[in-house]
Amino acid sequence: MTDLKYDVAGIGNALVDVISNADDAFLTANGIEKGGMTLIDSERADALYAKMAPGVESSGGSCANTIAGLASLGGKGAFFGKVKNDQLGEVFVHDIKSLGVAFPASLAQEGAPTGRCLVIVTPDAQRSMSTFLGAAQKLSPDDIDADTIRAAAVTYMEGYLWDEPGAKDAFLKAAKIAHEAGRLVSLTLSDSFCVDRFRDEFRRLAKDEVDLLFANEAEILSLYQTDIFDEALQQVRKDCKFAALTRSEQGSVIVADGEVHVVDAAKVDKVVDTTGAGDLFAAGFLYGLTRGKDPVTCGRLGALAAAEVISHYGPRPQVSLAELAKKEGLA
Amino acid sequence: MTDLKYDVAGIGNALVDVISNADDAFLTANGIEKGGMTLIDSERADALYAKMAPGVESSGGSCANTIAGLASLGGKGAFFGKVKNDQLGEVFVHDIKSLGVAFPASLAQEGAPTGRCLVIVTPDAQRSMSTFLGAAQKLSPDDIDADTIRAAAVTYMEGYLWDEPGAKDAFLKAAKIAHEAGRLVSLTLSDSFCVDRFRDEFRRLAKDEVDLLFANEAEILSLYQTDIFDEALQQVRKDCKFAALTRSEQGSVIVADGEVHVVDAAKVDKVVDTTGAGDLFAAGFLYGLTRGKDPVTCGRLGALAAAEVISHYGPRPQVSLAELAKKEGLA
Repeated sequence: MTDLKYDVAGIGNALVDVISNADDAFLTANGIEKGGMTLIDSERADALYAKMAPGVESSGGSCANTIAGLASLGGKGAFFGKVKNDQLGEVFVHDIKSLGVAFPASLAQEGAPTGRCLVIVTPDAQRSMSTFLGAAQKLSPDDIDADTIRAAAVTYMEGYLWDEPGAKDAFLKAAKIAHEAGRLVSLTLSDSFCVDRFRDEFRRLAKDEVDLLFANEAEILSLYQTDIFDEALQQVRKDCKFAALTRSEQGSVIVADGEVHVVDAAKVDKVVDTTGAGDLFAAGFLYGLTRGKDPVTCGRLGALAAAEVISHYGPRPQVSLAELAKKEGLA
Repeated sequence: MTDLKYDVAGIGNALVDVISNADDAFLTANGIEKGGMTLIDSERADALYAKMAPGVESSGGSCANTIAGLASLGGKGAFFGKVKNDQLGEVFVHDIKSLGVAFPASLAQEGAPTGRCLVIVTPDAQRSMSTFLGAAQKLSPDDIDADTIRAAAVTYMEGYLWDEPGAKDAFLKAAKIAHEAGRLVSLTLSDSFCVDRFRDEFRRLAKDEVDLLFANEAEILSLYQTDIFDEALQQVRKDCKFAALTRSEQGSVIVADGEVHVVDAAKVDKVVDTTGAGDLFAAGFLYGLTRGKDPVTCGRLGALAAAEVISHYGPRPQVSLAELAKKEGLA
C-alpha cells in the first residue's frame, strides 16, 4: 500500500452490460464477430436488442470492471468515464461509488443515453460484444482531474478509448500528468480488433508512454504482428518495464524489469461467461503491484480475480475478492 | 396443450429487480424484514439503494417471473402489468416479449418511473425485498383485455395486487371473465405478510373464486391461522380444486380433486439466491397442468424450475427449462 490517496485511477468507457445467451448461429445471422467488440450505433443497438433473448443488466466497461475488482480486493480506486443522468447512468454511478470508488466526472445532462454493451454469451462461455457508446464518447480532457491522477500510484487506461478523439485526448492528458508526477502509466490493449485499428499508435505508446502493459495472447501477437508468442514476449520485454500477458486456461506470463515469470491459471469449476476475465486479471495484478507484491503474487492475484468472474454471468465480482485472496494466502 | 391461444394469462406487478448482497446486520440496520416483501416509497427507495452494494438488474415481478418460466418451458403466456416508457421499462418489455409472451397493456407515458424491487441476498441465500411499485400501481381494469383472458386456459394472479385498489379491481375483472369463459382462476398468496394484510379477503377468494391456489408453508399457515401444516392442508382441500403448497427443501404437497400427493424437491448443488423459487415452481406446475400432466408430474416440473432459479442470482431462468425438462423426462 502506498501513501497515495488512490492505488489506481482508471479511464475508460462507462457502459452498462446487457448480457444474454445465444448460439453461434445467432452471431452469424447477425454479423457479430465472435469474441470481439464491435462498435454499433443507436439504430443497430435497438435492432439487435430486439432480437436478443432476455438479459441481465450489470455495470460494465472494461476499465470500470478493473477498478471495481480492485475495490473488491480492498484497493483504493478512482474512475473517469461518462454516463448520462438517466436510469442506466444512475445504476452505473451507484455501482461504482458503492464500492468506495471516486467518480469525479460530471454526468451528461443531454444528448445520447448512457452507453450499453450488448453481450452475447455462447454455450462455450465465450462472449461477443456489440457496443453502443452513447454518452461514454463524450469523455474529454476536461473531465480529467489532475489532482486525482497525481494522487494515484497507477493511471490505468483501456485501448478502447482510442476509438473516440476526445477520449483519446483525455488518455494522453492523464498519461502526461501521471508521468510528470512520477507515477506509472498502464494500458490494456482491450481487443485484438482494437489493436488492428490502432497498431502503430499502440506500438508507440508501448515503447514511449506505457510502463505496464496488459494484453491477452491475441492482442500481443497482433501488436507485434507475429504468430509466435515468444517473439511478442521478447519484444514487450524491450518496450515496457512491466507487462502481464494472459493466455486463458494456460495462465499468464509476467514481465517485470526484464525478468520473465510464468503463472498458472486458477481453478474454475465451470466457466459460465468469460466477460471480464481480462479486466479482473488486471484488477488483481494492479492490486498486488500497488501493494509491493512480487510479480508472481501479482499474477496469482490476477488469476484468482479472473477465475471468480468467469464462474458466473456478468463482468464484476459477485463475492468479496478480498476474502478470496485471504483464503488463498495472497492478501 | 390446449387448443387455446394461451396456456396462462398472468396479472402482476411489473418490476425490475436490483439484486445485491449484504449480511444480516444490513437488514437490521435498515429495518428490512428478512425474507419478506415491504412496500417502500420513492424517497426510501433512493435512500436504501444508496446504501446497497453494487447490484445486478433483472426483470422481475412475481407473476411475470412465472410467465417467463412458463415460456422457457415452451408454454404460451400473456402478461398484464404496467411499466413506464423509460429505460427500465424498455428492459422489462424486451425481456418478456423476447420470450414470445404477449404484453397487451400500454406503457405509462407520465408519472412514476418503472417499479423496482430492491433485493438483498444474505449469505444464507435468503432474499429480502423492498419494493417501490412506481408505474406498476397504475394497472387498472382498463388494461385487462377480455379476449386474452378468455383465450387462456388459466388466469394466474399474485396476491401482491391486493395492495393497490386499481390492480385489485383488475384482478377481480379478470377472474370474472375467466370463469364466465369456463377457464381456471389461479392465485399465489405471494408472501405471509401479504396474507396478514388481506387474510379475510384471501380466504373468501380461496373458497369462492380460486380454482388453483399456490402458497408456501408460511403463507398457507397464515391464511388458515394455524401452526400445523396438515390442518392448513385439510382446509385448502375443502376450499380449492387444486392447490400446490411448497415447503422449500422439503418439496411440495399437491392437492388435486381432493387427493393429496407429496413431491420431493429437485437437487441443487449450491443454493445462491432463493429469489423466484416460488414463482418458478408455479411456472413448472402451470406448464404441466395446462398440458394435462398428472399432479405429481406437475409438482416435479415445478421443483425442476425452482431448482434452476435458486442456483444463480436473479429471478428468471438462465438456461432453457424446456431442455432441462426434456433431460429429466418430464416434457
